[in-house]
Amino acid sequence: MNKQITLAKRPIGLPQDDTWNFQETAIPTIADGEMLIKNIYISLDPAMRGWLNDVKSYLPPVGIGEVMRAGTLGKVIESKNAEYAVGDYVVGWTGVQEYAVSNGFMLYKVQQMGIPLSAYLGTLGMPGFTAYFGLLDIGKPKEGETLLVSGAAGAVGSVVGQIAKIKGCKVVGIAGGPEKCGYVTNDLGFDACIDYKNENVFKKIKEHCPKGIDIYFDNVGGDILDMALASLRMHARVVLCGAISQYNSTSGIKGPSNYLSLLINRARMEGFVVIDYAQDYKKAAMEMGQWVAQGKLNTKIHMEEGIENFPTVLHRLFDGNKRGKLVLKVGEE
Amino acid sequence: MNKQITLAKRPIGLPQDDTWNFQETAIPTIADGEMLIKNIYISLDPAMRGWLNDVKSYLPPVGIGEVMRAGTLGKVIESKNAEYAVGDYVVGWTGVQEYAVSNGFMLYKVQQMGIPLSAYLGTLGMPGFTAYFGLLDIGKPKEGETLLVSGAAGAVGSVVGQIAKIKGCKVVGIAGGPEKCGYVTNDLGFDACIDYKNENVFKKIKEHCPKGIDIYFDNVGGDILDMALASLRMHARVVLCGAISQYNSTSGIKGPSNYLSLLINRARMEGFVVIDYAQDYKKAAMEMGQWVAQGKLNTKIHMEEGIENFPTVLHRLFDGNKRGKLVLKVGEE
Repeated sequence: MNKQITLAKRPIGLPQDDTWNFQETAIPTIADGEMLIKNIYISLDPAMRGWLNDVKSYLPPVGIGEVMRAGTLGKVIESKNAEYAVGDYVVGWTGVQEYAVSNGFMLYKVQQMGIPLSAYLGTLGMPGFTAYFGLLDIGKPKEGETLLVSGAAGAVGSVVGQIAKIKGCKVVGIAGGPEKCGYVTNDLGFDACIDYKNENVFKKIKEHCPKGIDIYFDNVGGDILDMALASLRMHARVVLCGAISQYNSTSGIKGPSNYLSLLINRARMEGFVVIDYAQDYKKAAMEMGQWVAQGKLNTKIHMEEGIENFPTVLHRLFDGNKRGKLVLKVGEE
Repeated sequence: MNKQITLAKRPIGLPQDDTWNFQETAIPTIADGEMLIKNIYISLDPAMRGWLNDVKSYLPPVGIGEVMRAGTLGKVIESKNAEYAVGDYVVGWTGVQEYAVSNGFMLYKVQQMGIPLSAYLGTLGMPGFTAYFGLLDIGKPKEGETLLVSGAAGAVGSVVGQIAKIKGCKVVGIAGGPEKCGYVTNDLGFDACIDYKNENVFKKIKEHCPKGIDIYFDNVGGDILDMALASLRMHARVVLCGAISQYNSTSGIKGPSNYLSLLINRARMEGFVVIDYAQDYKKAAMEMGQWVAQGKLNTKIHMEEGIENFPTVLHRLFDGNKRGKLVLKVGEE
C-alpha cells in the first residue's frame, strides 16, 4: 500500500493534526513514458505553509484532498521512460507519500558526487538553490561588504552566509539560542551570530555591522526585518526570501514600518522565487558541490523518520526545534 | 529688513503656529565670492516635514532657531562672485526668508526658455527632477507598461504621469476629489484617475489596471501603497518617493503589510533621493523644457503670497487644498 498525507482542511495559524489526513491507497501503476518512484527523503520547508492558503501565489494552493506538495528524493523502482532506469535516484516534487508516478516533469536525476543523498534536498537542492540565486542574483554581494542573514542556522540562511563568506563578505547571522549561534559561527564560519532569543538584536546589529548592512537576506520578516531596515547602508539590497515569523499569524502580516529607510538610503527590497532559475540548477549544483568537496560549504541535515509523523515534525520548522535542514525519512536508500 | 521664518520648536504631528518664529533681521552684507539674493518664490514641498524631525536622514534636520530650509527662486541684487551678475535669476536652497547670501553652493542660474519663472520650482525644478529621475532611473518604464502614481495632481506625481505617457505607458493616477481627478485626466492627459476620497481605490485599480501594475510611483504610503502592492504584475517596480500620508503621524509609520507581494511577483521596491542626480539636472531641465514647449508637459502653479503666511500655506500640502505645485511669492520678479 501507498501511505500518503493529504490536506484535510486549510489551517488558520499553525497547522494542526486535523489539517491532515493520513491514508493508504493502492500503489499506482504506470503507463508508457512514466516511472514509479519509491520516496526515500521528504523535504520539509517553510514555503509549505504558504501553499496551504487559498490565495494566488507563485504556485497554486494545495487542494483539499490532494497529497501534500513536497520536494522529495526517491529511487526509480519501475520505468517505462527511456531517460530513467530502475535504480536511478531522482529529485522532484512527488509529495508526502511513499510511492509516486512521474513522467519526468520537474524531476531530475541526482549526479552523485560522494555527498550524502539527503543533501540533494538541502544544500544541493531547493534550499541551496534558493540561497545561491537569491544571494548572487538579487543580493549581488561585493567583496568587503557586510551581509546580515536571518534564519542563519536554517537550510537557506546557512548556505547564504557560507556563500557570502566565499565571496569575501563580512557575514553576520541571526539565530535562536546559543547552541544554534555556536553552530553558525563555529561550524559554518560566520563572523558573528546574534541570538535573537537572548540578545538585543538592534544593538548587536549596530555592534557587528558598525558601517551598516550592505545586504540583508530576510527569511523571517517581522521585527527583525524592521531592525535590519533601520541599519541599512547606502545602496543596500534587502533580499526577500521568506517571512517565517508571519506565516502562521492569525492577525495579518506585519508590514515593515521602517521601509522608508529604503528611500533615505537609496536602497532596494526585492523578492524572488527559486523556480524561475530552474534552467540554472545544474550549474549551481556543480559549483556548490565543489564547495562542499573543498570543505567550504557545510551541509547539515536534521533527520526525522516515518511518514505518519509528518504533522508533528512539520512543527519543528516553526518552533525552531531543529538542527540543520529538516528532512523526513520514509524509505531506505 | 530681512523677514525670516525660523524653526521655533519641533512639531509632533502637523506643524502648528508655535512651530515657527517670524523675525526681522538686518539685510546681510556680502564678502568676496558671495552674492546677495532677493528671493521671489519659495517652494513648499512635503519633504519639508521630514527635515523638522531630529533624526538622521539624507539631509541634516533644520536646527532650532535656524531659517527654515526651502528651495527658492530669487534674483541677484548684489554680487562679488564672478559667475553671477546682478539681475541673474537663481534657483537654490536659500530658505524661507526675503534676502539670502550665497557663495554659489547648490545654486544655479535659470536658463530662461520663455516659461514662467515659478516653473523652475516645479516642473523644471526639484519636483520635476524628482519625477524625471525617479521614473526613468528607478521605475525604468517600457512602452506598453501600466504605471500607477499616487499624488497624481501634485508637483511630482503630475510630472511622473506625463513623462510616463511620453514614454508610451498606460497611466493611472490617484488623487483626492473629482476636481483634481478631472485636472489629471483632462489637463494632464492621464488615461484614468482614481478619486481616493470617493471611490473604492482597490476595485478601481483592478478595473483600470486589469493586467496589474508594472510601475507604482508612491508619494503617499499608507493604505494606498498596500493596495498597489496587492496589484503588482510580475517584475514590477515600486518607486519610493515619499509617504505624505505618514509624515504627520503621531502613532508611528504604517509599514506595508502586503510587502510579500514583492516576493510572489519577483518585484522590487526602491528608494531614491533627487540630490544624487545633481550633475544631471541641467540635462533633465533641457529635455523637460522642450516637452513643455511642445505642449507635452503641463506646468501648473498654485501661488500664495506673503512670507508671513508660510505656516498656514504649508498646511495645504497636507490637507490637499491646492491645485498644482505650491509656491509662496515673497517678492516681485
